[in-house]
Amino acid sequence: MKFIVDQQVEDIEMPENLKLNTFLQEFHSNCPHPECSFGYYGFAFGQSPFPVPQKIQDALIASASKGAYAAVSGLPELRNAISKYNKHYFGMDVDPQRIYIGPGTKELIFNLLEILHGTVILPTPAWLGYLPQIRFLKKNYHMLPTRANRKISPSDLRKLALRLQDRQKILILNNPNNPTGLLYDKLELEEIADVCREQNICVISDEIYAQTTYDFSKFVSMGKIYPEGTFVTNGLSKSHAAGGYRLGYVIFPQHAIDLKIQFKKILATEFTAVSTPIQNAAISGFEISDEMNEYFEITRNIHKIMGEYSYDALSAIHGVKATKPDATFYLLADFNYYAPDLDAAKINTSQKLSESLIVHPYHTAIVGGDSLVLERTDFSARIAYVDYDGTKVYKNYQEQKPKTPSEKITFVENNAPKIVSGIKMIETFFESLKSGKIGESSKKHLGITT
Amino acid sequence: MKFIVDQQVEDIEMPENLKLNTFLQEFHSNCPHPECSFGYYGFAFGQSPFPVPQKIQDALIASASKGAYAAVSGLPELRNAISKYNKHYFGMDVDPQRIYIGPGTKELIFNLLEILHGTVILPTPAWLGYLPQIRFLKKNYHMLPTRANRKISPSDLRKLALRLQDRQKILILNNPNNPTGLLYDKLELEEIADVCREQNICVISDEIYAQTTYDFSKFVSMGKIYPEGTFVTNGLSKSHAAGGYRLGYVIFPQHAIDLKIQFKKILATEFTAVSTPIQNAAISGFEISDEMNEYFEITRNIHKIMGEYSYDALSAIHGVKATKPDATFYLLADFNYYAPDLDAAKINTSQKLSESLIVHPYHTAIVGGDSLVLERTDFSARIAYVDYDGTKVYKNYQEQKPKTPSEKITFVENNAPKIVSGIKMIETFFESLKSGKIGESSKKHLGITT
Repeated sequence: MKFIVDQQVEDIEMPENLKLNTFLQEFHSNCPHPECSFGYYGFAFGQSPFPVPQKIQDALIASASKGAYAAVSGLPELRNAISKYNKHYFGMDVDPQRIYIGPGTKELIFNLLEILHGTVILPTPAWLGYLPQIRFLKKNYHMLPTRANRKISPSDLRKLALRLQDRQKILILNNPNNPTGLLYDKLELEEIADVCREQNICVISDEIYAQTTYDFSKFVSMGKIYPEGTFVTNGLSKSHAAGGYRLGYVIFPQHAIDLKIQFKKILATEFTAVSTPIQNAAISGFEISDEMNEYFEITRNIHKIMGEYSYDALSAIHGVKATKPDATFYLLADFNYYAPDLDAAKINTSQKLSESLIVHPYHTAIVGGDSLVLERTDFSARIAYVDYDGTKVYKNYQEQKPKTPSEKITFVENNAPKIVSGIKMIETFFESLKSGKIGESSKKHLGITT
Repeated sequence: MKFIVDQQVEDIEMPENLKLNTFLQEFHSNCPHPECSFGYYGFAFGQSPFPVPQKIQDALIASASKGAYAAVSGLPELRNAISKYNKHYFGMDVDPQRIYIGPGTKELIFNLLEILHGTVILPTPAWLGYLPQIRFLKKNYHMLPTRANRKISPSDLRKLALRLQDRQKILILNNPNNPTGLLYDKLELEEIADVCREQNICVISDEIYAQTTYDFSKFVSMGKIYPEGTFVTNGLSKSHAAGGYRLGYVIFPQHAIDLKIQFKKILATEFTAVSTPIQNAAISGFEISDEMNEYFEITRNIHKIMGEYSYDALSAIHGVKATKPDATFYLLADFNYYAPDLDAAKINTSQKLSESLIVHPYHTAIVGGDSLVLERTDFSARIAYVDYDGTKVYKNYQEQKPKTPSEKITFVENNAPKIVSGIKMIETFFESLKSGKIGESSKKHLGITT
């Protein structure tokens, strides 16, 4: 039988992280140099390297017998815990009735985009997951390129909104930001909120990296600045190193009662409820405890040390600019200085740059610009600095916290040697490029047709 | 801020089981008779009452540390186990590459409906979850009312297909069937498959109750009869009593390679992957073992005993007809004999019948006809016979298996007294109705405005 597929499905592309994953798997088994058993420097995957907190594991273990369906909106105990978590960490008063649980933040953002009418405004660069959702749902959308500081310009936002005919617009705000690692401060959020109020823009504020903010006191949720128009999403994946558990939540705006009824219908229609044992496990992750607090502190400190090292090391490469991360485990590295050399080597898209970096002898995996919703010819890339054994590094950090700048560098060298060597390899690549040693030939053995 | 919701969201109704759930919760706290602390006879919820098999619980416990994202299509070990499970129990040769894992069968059916072009053919009565999905996705659809035997008539299917203009049609086959408990035999499936081949109909065969088939040797999967055009869905929810775990799978038709690529994109776009610990736990549930085999046997035998009792007891009520279940834990009871009396009592829709049965002193929860995609005035209802303590009953059955018909009745009386009394209460209700004792007044104290 020949099957006919609906058009909007064919129109979307595989999310780029998964394309890359496939690419790396194929590459891994195909490296034509048998002497080379190295694998690759993993700057591509956005996964926390740390162990799932023991408290969460214990709670999952205690919940294995819970085979009954949970309520559509989520377990009341979990919604309560999340409400208190938001109060404690983010200073927000959130009625548990405003909280809905989903199998990951991604699905909840998809569900929000399903119900909310209007044109989507997507600031770029952006996380690679939003655009396939927007395209699949056939929503109108507009990019909003950020300025040199890699942040949304309120006046650009206003200008764009004025051009749109929709009564309602939807801004996707990702704060702290993937891929830049940057944090919006209170004033910046207030300026964005002013435009949103004026232009009837509701905000999906993806704050999945909130808890990773290095100087945690600086994090401010858009849900606090613009409570009447913001949907805040967050979950276990990044702060609790449990992406594989698949649990996220969304906080609805104040007073959005009708909308909540609509949303609940969608959850009931699409997935019924999130796994009951997983929800029970998550309660422990969101409850306030010394154990979790220590976990957040240690992990964000390690991310900060790795981030500062990576920023410094990349910035030290001639011609390379990078965002200095305030949070997350990413930064955005800008290699456009090498555009003429890349063009000369027939590497004329960011995709080709990623492919050229992954092949022998560089073996370096990055997420290239067009996967971040940048122009195909923008040679910027997301660098994730998590390629180390998180369990071991966590223990080492607990045993001896590095304090001085030189102790921190030593800590990275001892604990994350692949980050150190990987960044050196990026430097080597651009040096070879500059000296004309890189061209089309380096990619041939991979069988890449571009 | 006033939010604008997309139209197709407002057009769908809350799935009926969840509406009923809300209704029962409200009712429960509102019964105006303070002396009445009974609760209700629960014939409405379709949830297996048994404990999650120990093997699955143990595997979940052993997997609590697995916080990493799983592959989009599912863990290879799980897909292998499901492949072998299908070979062992259903005699099907399924390449693991044809299997995709989702957070429940419901989401996978939704995802299939998202990608497959064409008009949906929905035989009725039907499980209450399909229609909200179809409506939300704005798909064209046609009901296909079953005949007196409550099964799809191949010639009716052909007639309907001939009227449809689509190049591709999608039949939703639910076998064994919820709400009737009936099983399609091989010949019946072959006749349906013939029409499907002829009319270019692909089949979503929801076989979530396959393993509950009382005479298990009689179950035949549509995936075996019509392998080139059938998507088989199944999961942990019913056979493994782990609906709350949220794990289902779909087997793609043979040779549907392009389609699989499209499908994987959708999974990656909407939910990334199913919870890693849950997937690991599921492996144990699908692996062939004496323990699981015994579990399937015992649970299906208990369902059979409860089903036979319920069928006999309901059929013994004057005027009531019921389907005799071959599988599942449901049957369809037909109360249309009482239509004139119901009408006289101003109970003129199936919804009103459900509401009249739930109030004091009847306290009996059923799923009425229009929740099963029947006419609003069809006084048929789904009766789920699972209102007992599954853990206790499982043990009692293990200790002493009832063999003779009278031992089986005693088993039900001892182990499921609420089923016994609940069916008597249904009888009492219709007796009262017949003698004119039931009218609008009986519902007033609930504040139901109809």
